[in-house]
Amino acid sequence: MSDAFHRDCPARMVLDHVTGRWGVLVLTAMRGGPLRFYELRVKIEGISEKMLSQTLRTLVRDGFVLRTVTPSTPPQVSYGLTALGHGITEPLQALSDWIRDHADGILAAQAAHDAAERAG
Amino acid sequence: MSDAFHRDCPARMVLDHVTGRWGVLVLTAMRGGPLRFYELRVKIEGISEKMLSQTLRTLVRDGFVLRTVTPSTPPQVSYGLTALGHGITEPLQALSDWIRDHADGILAAQAAHDAAERAG
Repeated sequence: MSDAFHRDCPARMVLDHVTGRWGVLVLTAMRGGPLRFYELRVKIEGISEKMLSQTLRTLVRDGFVLRTVTPSTPPQVSYGLTALGHGITEPLQALSDWIRDHADGILAAQAAHDAAERAG
Repeated sequence: MSDAFHRDCPARMVLDHVTGRWGVLVLTAMRGGPLRFYELRVKIEGISEKMLSQTLRTLVRDGFVLRTVTPSTPPQVSYGLTALGHGITEPLQALSDWIRDHADGILAAQAAHDAAERAG
């Protein structure tokens, strides 16, 4: 089976796509339903147009995100999770929730570490 | 509470540290117990000495990893998970397992996507 500890393992490549700041945020942002490009940009503060495009392209290719064009005037493009995409947002959301719930402890550890370094 | 969708949110910074290829692999590698630097390098194929040092430094500062020096001759340095570090490896391992279990579906999606692109 694929083991992310091995170089050239497919699981490691997918880990690169779905983790990293933007992968996690783009996938979890769509949990509430499909969004248009500009809605994603507003929701995910600080993501550039270029990074959002690249992230969406990668996630569409991986089968996590479906790009849908509604033939209106003008045509509307939206991005939503596939079944596979919904599946991966479960562990991603659990990770995100864990970090949120433990943010105070992590910030305290950083402050203690920096104080110890300064004390030499 | 901290919300990773907001720029400058502490949760987003921690997400950057623990996800991304090396954060996940270094943290989950230590689940079985503390390891020495060269043991981590061997276990995590393809990580450079520089990237491993940087990743460990960040994870020590975040309070996930404890660096222990045993005063033998020569002194032995090992890296192990703190209680906080053990905590975060739960959702990280769940994510890693999900990806491993769904790697075939993801690779199939990529192949179908590339074939459709080639067909124009």
